[in-house]
Amino acid sequence: MNQEEQWLLPDGVEEVLPERARAIEHLRRRALDLYQSWGYELVFPPLIEFLESLLNGAGRDLERETFKITDQLSGRLMGVRADMTPQVARMDAHSLRHGAPTRLCYCSTALRARPAQAGGSRVPYQLGVELFGHDGAESDLEVILLMLETMALAGIQDRVVLDLGHVGIFRSLVAACDLTAADQARLEDIYLRKARTELDAFLTERTLPAAASRALAELPFLDGDSAVFGHARALLADFPEALAALAALEALAEALAGCPARLHLDLGELRGYHYHTGVVLAVYLPGDSEPLAKGGRYDHIGEVFGRARPATGFSADLKKLAALAAVPRGGGVLARGKLSDAAFAAKVAALRADGERVVLALPGADNDPGELGCDRQLVAADNGWTIQPISS
Amino acid sequence: MNQEEQWLLPDGVEEVLPERARAIEHLRRRALDLYQSWGYELVFPPLIEFLESLLNGAGRDLERETFKITDQLSGRLMGVRADMTPQVARMDAHSLRHGAPTRLCYCSTALRARPAQAGGSRVPYQLGVELFGHDGAESDLEVILLMLETMALAGIQDRVVLDLGHVGIFRSLVAACDLTAADQARLEDIYLRKARTELDAFLTERTLPAAASRALAELPFLDGDSAVFGHARALLADFPEALAALAALEALAEALAGCPARLHLDLGELRGYHYHTGVVLAVYLPGDSEPLAKGGRYDHIGEVFGRARPATGFSADLKKLAALAAVPRGGGVLARGKLSDAAFAAKVAALRADGERVVLALPGADNDPGELGCDRQLVAADNGWTIQPISS
Repeated sequence: MNQEEQWLLPDGVEEVLPERARAIEHLRRRALDLYQSWGYELVFPPLIEFLESLLNGAGRDLERETFKITDQLSGRLMGVRADMTPQVARMDAHSLRHGAPTRLCYCSTALRARPAQAGGSRVPYQLGVELFGHDGAESDLEVILLMLETMALAGIQDRVVLDLGHVGIFRSLVAACDLTAADQARLEDIYLRKARTELDAFLTERTLPAAASRALAELPFLDGDSAVFGHARALLADFPEALAALAALEALAEALAGCPARLHLDLGELRGYHYHTGVVLAVYLPGDSEPLAKGGRYDHIGEVFGRARPATGFSADLKKLAALAAVPRGGGVLARGKLSDAAFAAKVAALRADGERVVLALPGADNDPGELGCDRQLVAADNGWTIQPISS
Repeated sequence: MNQEEQWLLPDGVEEVLPERARAIEHLRRRALDLYQSWGYELVFPPLIEFLESLLNGAGRDLERETFKITDQLSGRLMGVRADMTPQVARMDAHSLRHGAPTRLCYCSTALRARPAQAGGSRVPYQLGVELFGHDGAESDLEVILLMLETMALAGIQDRVVLDLGHVGIFRSLVAACDLTAADQARLEDIYLRKARTELDAFLTERTLPAAASRALAELPFLDGDSAVFGHARALLADFPEALAALAALEALAEALAGCPARLHLDLGELRGYHYHTGVVLAVYLPGDSEPLAKGGRYDHIGEVFGRARPATGFSADLKKLAALAAVPRGGGVLARGKLSDAAFAAKVAALRADGERVVLALPGADNDPGELGCDRQLVAADNGWTIQPISS
């Protein structure tokens, strides 16, 4: 590695310089304040854990995305978190153990061995909420509304598409087909890619109940606005659990009729790390293939920690969200003087206490006001110090 | 790993639950606002980098503390940052390239393969500032004052000891002795442990210039208040560079005479990752062996990135600082109602917009006000909704 290469960063890894950091920090605070006002309490899950704790309850996707390291203290394998949802579920099930619904939020860096899509980030700044201890439309709705409020903080609430699905529909059809685990995994993979030719071949090669096979063939392509419900009800008439999932989705769609986002229903959507069990949600900018935020219901992760609680939540990459909104630097005062001059030091301290940005000029340095972000300066006056604009 | 062990965390790794997270977030915002008011701009260094970039310019201590992982995309060795100072120096030297002094700050999680001391954290939440582009008393003083202001945010400014040293004294004596690299490393190690018997043996075994040997024997034990300067000047009379370092330290001590912290000079102090070149600083609570914050001058790290700029800074573990101050939860309003009731939904939204914490009661759940942190409730009244205290 020669000197020219010292500053190269790995693919999917980026440093965040002041302009972008300002936008991220601004949005971070507004989002955490929003979540706090809805009763969600901040937690910081650990950056590393024993691998088994980190992956328990989650699926093989998460395992592939997780960087592994050996603990020099215990000799055991650890992982750097690639997703915080299972960690927060552990906090709820083991550390907090409340009887009441528990609302938690977080904003921390995750690490992915591979980016979610080509050219994507491997170090997302993951922002999210989780609601434990309630199974039903009210908690699903609360989390969806909070996801949309988060989009409003970024100023894009009326530009986004809200994508809703329910993995219970797919699961009830699969249950009716008595598929092997390998076949089920293959079918999930086909669904994630919505690969119609492969799907038709898969269904033709197997002897499945006719109604289930027909429904499985159509499900990935049942998407659009509320008009999909009518046809879906007919298609799924033989599957009571699928109908119940459909009804839950329809009630949510009604409750969300007035929201500024465009609603898009996708009845064959299977999202995330295979831990979802109910309603799944995502927010997209039109034309983007990766969501800005995603989540859904996952009622079983806590089981491995000894206490299953129903759960729902969403997460977003704060870096992607913040890239949609710039925050100006806001100027500052360049102060030329010595801190050993008590009047000068007092004036500088008073300005800073008032929220002013005051940058000390350092002797012998090129204190360029532009680079220092200063539009005014502190100058000596008859009775003390005064602020004057800097003529450019 | 059985079910009981799923929640075990590795040694030195901890999860941060709501009560502590509240204190950390509160202090985080106040510290970053403080740094902003002094002209320091926030950056987010990447969590991982190629190992050579991460360790360049830093010493072997940092190498031992850094977790290594193999990049599946490039096959090259990467490291998870154990310290952010070299990363921020790279930003200054390569990415920003300002002519003016550059002030940057950060607050992110680092990862240490081994804790700094037995029982210490391996996942510190590192808070810090760096000032690039100025060599002299003014920038050293600015960074020290900002470190003390940070202690004031935690309410401990008059309880802490401010420890100051200057590695230039040791370096000038070592230069006069013409030591091999191995001997120099051994001597540094002895100095870090202040091991008097080993030091005497080391000096006796070698034929060193008499004045340098005498000074090296005494230096680790020259500590205390400003009274140390008189004797030190006599001891170091033959070493102009050591005298210059001593004079710089004395000027700083004078400028800091009015500060609330107790000043402790330690002329043989060698701190950190071997990258320091001038004044070194630390803040301790009396009786603690590990500092709350530490830093100093390091003028050469940027060289490996093609641009050496003088630099100084400090960092602290925000988790340790925040543990010194609790932040109460502050109550909240429990709201029993349906969001489909427009008047109820509007009232809830208005309260939240006013900064109130409003928690929705979820049907069928045990909405215990104590666990939910609610001291008031929203109840239906004749003309709308009103807030009443919850009788406990």
